[in-house]
Amino acid sequence: MGALRLPSLTSIFTVSSARSSLFPRRSSNRLNVRRLTSSAKVFAKATEVAPAESNQKLPVQEQGITPRSQDFNAWYLDVISMAELADYGPVRGTMVIRPYGYAIWEAIQDYLNVKFKETGHSNMYFPQFIPYSFIEKEASHVEGFSPELALVTVGGGKELEEKLVVRPTSETIVNHMFTQWIQSYRDLPLMINQWANVTRWEMRTKPFIRTLEFLWQEGHTAHATPEEAEKEAMQMIDVYTKFAYEQAAIPVIPGRKSRVETFAGADRTYTIEAMMGDRKALQAGTSHNLGQNFSRAFGTQFADENGQRQHVWQTSWAISTRFVGGIIMTHGDDAGLMLPPRLASVQVVIVPIWKKANEKNEVLDAALSVKDVLHSAGIKVKLDDSDQRTPGWKFNFWEMKGVPLRIEIGPRDVSSGSVVVSRRDIPGKPGKVFGISMESSVLVPYIKEKLDEIQSSLLDKAIAFRDSNIVDVSSYDELKVAISQGKWARGPWVGSDEDELKVKEETGATIRCYPFDQPQGPKKCLMTGSPADEVAIFAKSY
Amino acid sequence: MGALRLPSLTSIFTVSSARSSLFPRRSSNRLNVRRLTSSAKVFAKATEVAPAESNQKLPVQEQGITPRSQDFNAWYLDVISMAELADYGPVRGTMVIRPYGYAIWEAIQDYLNVKFKETGHSNMYFPQFIPYSFIEKEASHVEGFSPELALVTVGGGKELEEKLVVRPTSETIVNHMFTQWIQSYRDLPLMINQWANVTRWEMRTKPFIRTLEFLWQEGHTAHATPEEAEKEAMQMIDVYTKFAYEQAAIPVIPGRKSRVETFAGADRTYTIEAMMGDRKALQAGTSHNLGQNFSRAFGTQFADENGQRQHVWQTSWAISTRFVGGIIMTHGDDAGLMLPPRLASVQVVIVPIWKKANEKNEVLDAALSVKDVLHSAGIKVKLDDSDQRTPGWKFNFWEMKGVPLRIEIGPRDVSSGSVVVSRRDIPGKPGKVFGISMESSVLVPYIKEKLDEIQSSLLDKAIAFRDSNIVDVSSYDELKVAISQGKWARGPWVGSDEDELKVKEETGATIRCYPFDQPQGPKKCLMTGSPADEVAIFAKSY
Repeated sequence: MGALRLPSLTSIFTVSSARSSLFPRRSSNRLNVRRLTSSAKVFAKATEVAPAESNQKLPVQEQGITPRSQDFNAWYLDVISMAELADYGPVRGTMVIRPYGYAIWEAIQDYLNVKFKETGHSNMYFPQFIPYSFIEKEASHVEGFSPELALVTVGGGKELEEKLVVRPTSETIVNHMFTQWIQSYRDLPLMINQWANVTRWEMRTKPFIRTLEFLWQEGHTAHATPEEAEKEAMQMIDVYTKFAYEQAAIPVIPGRKSRVETFAGADRTYTIEAMMGDRKALQAGTSHNLGQNFSRAFGTQFADENGQRQHVWQTSWAISTRFVGGIIMTHGDDAGLMLPPRLASVQVVIVPIWKKANEKNEVLDAALSVKDVLHSAGIKVKLDDSDQRTPGWKFNFWEMKGVPLRIEIGPRDVSSGSVVVSRRDIPGKPGKVFGISMESSVLVPYIKEKLDEIQSSLLDKAIAFRDSNIVDVSSYDELKVAISQGKWARGPWVGSDEDELKVKEETGATIRCYPFDQPQGPKKCLMTGSPADEVAIFAKSY
Repeated sequence: MGALRLPSLTSIFTVSSARSSLFPRRSSNRLNVRRLTSSAKVFAKATEVAPAESNQKLPVQEQGITPRSQDFNAWYLDVISMAELADYGPVRGTMVIRPYGYAIWEAIQDYLNVKFKETGHSNMYFPQFIPYSFIEKEASHVEGFSPELALVTVGGGKELEEKLVVRPTSETIVNHMFTQWIQSYRDLPLMINQWANVTRWEMRTKPFIRTLEFLWQEGHTAHATPEEAEKEAMQMIDVYTKFAYEQAAIPVIPGRKSRVETFAGADRTYTIEAMMGDRKALQAGTSHNLGQNFSRAFGTQFADENGQRQHVWQTSWAISTRFVGGIIMTHGDDAGLMLPPRLASVQVVIVPIWKKANEKNEVLDAALSVKDVLHSAGIKVKLDDSDQRTPGWKFNFWEMKGVPLRIEIGPRDVSSGSVVVSRRDIPGKPGKVFGISMESSVLVPYIKEKLDEIQSSLLDKAIAFRDSNIVDVSSYDELKVAISQGKWARGPWVGSDEDELKVKEETGATIRCYPFDQPQGPKKCLMTGSPADEVAIFAKSY
C-alpha cells in the first residue's frame, strides 16, 4: 500500500462482512431505545414502580439488540446505534460521533496526551491540505495509494492549478516542514504529535473501524541516530500497549509486522493486535521506525557535531477512533456495551425507585446525597432521576450503555441507610449486593474497589478469551484447522513473502505480528520446516 | 455573506494591509532567532558568561523584530516567526501552528472546555464533508457564500456524483442530524460543541487572523422556546467575555451586532470586540440567536407537551485560533510577544549564570532545585540550562517568547540563597528585583503574586489603552475625525442600513457593536438627529 499511509489503518481494510459493507442505514433501529422496557432478569424490583410511571407504559420491546452470537456485525451496529455512540453522516461512509461515543475518545485523549507529553512530545497542528505533488513524490516508491485520496479541485469558485489532497496521514507535509526547521544536531530530537482528522476514501466502511474520515493522533519524530529512532518507535508501542491493558482492559499482543505487512515507507512497523469478540484481529495502534526513507525523499538533513550533513532518522505512530470500536467489540455482550471503568464517562449510575408519591422526595434526597458523596470523591456518577421511565427501563438502558456500576435506592434502602449495588459485568443476582451503607466512609471505598475489580475482571476475561483462542501450530495443516475454527494460529515462521501471501489466499489469515513475547528453544518453520528464530501469529482481521 | 457562516469570521475578512495581503514568505526572518544576541538593556549581567559560551559568540543581531510603531503588520509577522508560534504551510494561505503557538490554543481549549461542560454542553464530532446540496439549500436565502468554499470533487479516484463541501461551519449538517435526533420536548435542550478544523477559501490571509484552514470550537444548541435560546446565546457570549478578561487579559467590549453585520441566518448576533495594538477592532468571538431560521430550512421539529409539532429555537457560537492573533496584537511590544500568565505554557523561565567552570555545578544545582520547588507548586517553569547560548541571548530569547517572569541565578545568588526576578511587562531595571529568597515558603508565594500582578497589569494596561482610544461622538463629522485618527467612535445611532454602509464607504469603519454597557439619558442619532435608544461603536477592523 501507499508509502504515505500508516499501515495501522490499511492492512485491515480488506475484510468486511456483508452486512456492514455498504454502511447500511439501519434507521429501523434508531428508536429501539425508546421501546426498551424491562425484561425479566432486571425486574427484581419491578413492583417498585412509581405511579407516575405506571400510566406511561412503554410498548414492549419489539426489537432489541441482535444477539452477539447470532450476528456479530449486526450486534455491533445495534450497540452503536442504541447506545448512541455514533450515527451515520449524510455522506456515504462518514460517521457522526455522538456525545456518549465521543466521551470515550476524550478519555483516550486525556490519558495519551499526558503520556505523550511525559515522553517529551509537543502538540502542534499541520494543515490538512497537501499539494498533490508531495504525494506523487512519495508514490514513486509505493503502489496504489491514489485510490484512497479525496481531492480538493475547486477553491474559492475556481479550478485549482494544483489539486490538493485532504490528508490521509501527514508524513509528507511533516517532512516538508521538518526540512525547514532542522538545521543542526541541536534541533534534534524533534518530537511532535497532532490530534487531527484524516480522510481515506474507503469503499467498505464500518463505524469507528473504517470510516472515510476519522480522528486520530499522529506522532512524528526526527532523531540524529538510528538507535534513537528505534528506541522511540519501541517506546511508543509500549505506551500504546500499557494504555490498552491498563485503561481499555484490552490484552493486545505487541509485536513486529512481517515484511509484507510493514508500511512501505518504514524500516520496521510495530503493532498492537487485539482479539475482538468474534475472534477477528484488530490492529489497534502502530509505531513505525521510518529509518531515513522520508528524510531522503524530502531532503531532511542536519549538520552533525562535526559539521557533516546527515539525513535524520524518523518515526511515526498513531492510534485512532478505531480504538473505540475495539473497546465495543472486546467487552460488549448481548445486553450491549460494557465500558472499562477507567474510560467510562459514567462510572456509576444511580437509579432511584419509589412506589408512592410520598416516598419520592426522601428517595430523591438520598439519591442526590449519594451522588454528591461519590462526585466529591472523584467518581463519575450520574443520577437518572427522570420521571419519564420506569426503573426497569433505566436498568436496561444503562446496562445497554455499558455503565460499570448501578446503585439502586428505594424506600427500604433509605430507611436502612443503605443502597443496592449491581455490577454490569456480572448479570443478575450474582452481581448484585444489598445493604451497602450510604456512609461516605463505607460507600466511597466500596465503589472504588468495585470499579477496580471490574477493570481487572474485564481484562482477565479478555485475556482468558484470547488465550483460549490462540492455538500453537507446527504445520500448515494445523494452521489451516485453527483458522477455519476462527482461532488465531501461532507457529514458527521463516516463510517467504510468497508463502505468507499463499496463506492469506488459502485461509484468509495474515501474519498479525511476530510477538515480542517469544517462546524459548529451537523451532522449525511451520511452512518450510527450516530452523526458525521466531513464531508469528496468523489470524483473520478487520 | 453566506448564511452558513458564523459572522465572527466573515465580516472582518475584507480589510487587510498590503504587507500581509499575499501571506508573503518572510523566510529571511526564519533564522533571526539564531542570530539574536544580547542587546544592552538586558546585559546587566553580561560579564557573567560561562567560558564555554564565550568561544561560541553568535553573530551580532542583524535583523531583529520590526518595531511595532514602524510597521505593525511586519512586527506581527516577525513575532509569529521569531517566537516560533506558526509557520507557513505549503499551500497558499495555510498555516502550521508550531508547539509554542499551539500551547496557547491548548490553554484556551482547557479553559473553555471546562466552562462549556459546566454550562451543560457535550462534545461530539460531525463529519467535515457536507453535501453541496445542503449548502445550496441554505444559499437560497443568503448571498455570496460559494466564493469561499473548498470542494472535494474526486474521491477514491473517481469523479463524485455530488461534490462535497469541506465544512466552513456546520449549521447545515448539524441541523440535518438534529432533525433525526429530536422527536419531543424531552429531547430538548440539545446542547453540543465540537472542536474542529474549518476551511474558508480566503484570498487575503494573515496567520491566525485569517487562514484557509483554522481551528475553532463551534457550539450548537436547540431549545423549545425562544426565551431559552436567547438566554443561551447571551450565556455563551458571557462565557467568552469572562474568558477574554480573566484569562487573556483582553478587555473586549461585548455587544449586539447591527442588522448589517448580523449573520444572515441569525435573528441576533452577539460579539466580543477587542482593540488591537494598532487600534483596529478584532471580532474575537460571536454567539448567535438563530431563531427558527435553520430549523425551518431543515425541518427540525419537536412534539411539545401537547403533542403539537414545533420548530426548535437554536443558537451557535464560536471562538477560533484567531484569538491567538488577538493575544499577540493586544499585549506584544517591540521586544516581541507578551503572554498573559494564565495562558502562558511557560510562566517562569530560569536562566542560570556562571563565569567559571567550578561555579557551573552549584549554579545548576540551585537552578534545578528552584525549578522543582516551583513545579511542585503548580507553576509552569522552564530551566534553560543549555550550554549553547549566553545568558544575554537567553534573556532576549525568552522575552521575545513573552514569558511573564524570568529568574536569574548566578554564583552570588547561590551564596546568598536568593534569586533575581524580572518581569516581562516592565522592561529593564524597574522590573527587576534582587535578593528574593530561594526558600520555598518565600519564593512560591512571591512568584504567584507576581504572576497575578502581571495578569492584572496586562489587563489594566489594555483597558487604559482601549479607553483612551474610544471617542464619544455626537455628529458624523466628529465620527469621521475620530476614525481618521485611528480611534474608535462611540455615538448614538438609529441610522438606516444605508447610513451604516455610507459610513463604511466614506470612513472604512463599521459598526462593531451596540455595546451592552449603555450610557443613561436621552440621546440623538449622530447621523440623523433622531432620538436614539443606544450608542453604537464604529471602528476599522481586521
